[in-house]
Amino acid sequence: MVNSRSLRDATVRADARTVLWISAHPEPRSLNGSLRRDGIAALRSMGHTVIESDLYAMGWDPVVRRNNLSSERIEGRLEVTRHGREAQVTGNVPDDVAAEQEKIRRSDAVVVQFPLWWYSMPALLKGWFDRVFVSGFAFGKDPGTGRRLRFEQGPFRGTRALAVVTLGDREASIGPRGKSGELTELLFGLLHGTFAYTGMDALRPWALPSADFTESGGDYARARDSLVARLEGMFSEEPIAYREQFTGDYTDEWELEPHVVPGEAGLSVHVRE
Amino acid sequence: MVNSRSLRDATVRADARTVLWISAHPEPRSLNGSLRRDGIAALRSMGHTVIESDLYAMGWDPVVRRNNLSSERIEGRLEVTRHGREAQVTGNVPDDVAAEQEKIRRSDAVVVQFPLWWYSMPALLKGWFDRVFVSGFAFGKDPGTGRRLRFEQGPFRGTRALAVVTLGDREASIGPRGKSGELTELLFGLLHGTFAYTGMDALRPWALPSADFTESGGDYARARDSLVARLEGMFSEEPIAYREQFTGDYTDEWELEPHVVPGEAGLSVHVRE
Repeated sequence: MVNSRSLRDATVRADARTVLWISAHPEPRSLNGSLRRDGIAALRSMGHTVIESDLYAMGWDPVVRRNNLSSERIEGRLEVTRHGREAQVTGNVPDDVAAEQEKIRRSDAVVVQFPLWWYSMPALLKGWFDRVFVSGFAFGKDPGTGRRLRFEQGPFRGTRALAVVTLGDREASIGPRGKSGELTELLFGLLHGTFAYTGMDALRPWALPSADFTESGGDYARARDSLVARLEGMFSEEPIAYREQFTGDYTDEWELEPHVVPGEAGLSVHVRE
Repeated sequence: MVNSRSLRDATVRADARTVLWISAHPEPRSLNGSLRRDGIAALRSMGHTVIESDLYAMGWDPVVRRNNLSSERIEGRLEVTRHGREAQVTGNVPDDVAAEQEKIRRSDAVVVQFPLWWYSMPALLKGWFDRVFVSGFAFGKDPGTGRRLRFEQGPFRGTRALAVVTLGDREASIGPRGKSGELTELLFGLLHGTFAYTGMDALRPWALPSADFTESGGDYARARDSLVARLEGMFSEEPIAYREQFTGDYTDEWELEPHVVPGEAGLSVHVRE
């Protein structure tokens, strides 16, 4: 640690990267607000460039609206409604969405920070993915090459993704046998279905349980230090080892091949042992 | 409860119930729109009363805003930000939220219909839970009795909850070994963390995979018939057998007791065998 820090200082940011920090908490003076400020400051002190998307401060609109839908008619099928793809392909992406897409293109890592509400993201943050991650940008077929954009062929390959979560439940409740659901399984739709699906390296989420009971002294300092340690290791730690889609583990029907962890089921089968 | 039900029985069909149908799709002419109309018509033909929350048509605001937060200071702890509880306890719930809360109070069942976007609910729908399911109404301590409101002591005990989901992925992809994650596990935060947490009987979700490839003839008719069959059985089928919290399966730390399915982990441990 001391060595790498010295090296970094010596080489003047040879390892400096760009990090997009997305957050969604309505109260800047909250625990989330403090962790956000301290986390961003720590990244900057490491030499990284931080781009911010503080969705409440931005007045982000989370709702996919009808005026950004298009439809496709194929003989004999129901008309298909698509969101965003036509605008993406024709270069008519709404300004607020285009700005967020540009931030991701520039970034080597994304931090997605939120309080866990009803065991998932606040609506404002969910609507960031709904509106920004449209077909032709984050998934679907590449409008230029026709290449399918997902998992190890996803558009954001090489981008690291860290979820930073506060929650009211106790620590044991998000453990392997916890009542709230083990956290990486509870967040499978985000970690695997969004981060990994778009090609990102999904890291183990950082979480602060019992957030409502954080003491202003030692508890907060420990939480901050723990988060900063994860940020320091963000570009070197091993991501969650989700299986690749196109290298033999899955059938064309998107099902695990019978010879892979035979007889087993549950979300953990999608992680290599 | 018995009295009010008997009163209702006297005036309407003996098995008639009230069903709240919540939906969130931006395009009324979509597959979701068709299933919604046909599902609601089927429920009515069974004699049920249907209350609708078509969130796009209502112009629902999904965002928890700072003006509905309150804070609590306890010596030695970080200030805690709470959403909605103070308004709930003092009777100052915003009109749009109060209207939705009243709909739930009146309902014997809730249908929550949505297209699966990024492996979870559209933001507009997530924000319905964020804003409507506040402390003192859907969880937390009952403002009157001080009783803890969750799981088998949840406020919506006896209310049935059915998720109705369309998705682009193939059917096998949401099966036990499917790449997208087995559907009840993928939706654990909704089925267990929201429906069961608030006391509802969470039913197995109804899902239509490969929705983009629905043929306008037989495929749609089969999907509709399958949905109507589930609606017909909604009040008699067995809910998902999630474990109760307070009857010995879990520790006070919200962790499965060591003697319960010893050594096992994963979301399925929370379902009784």
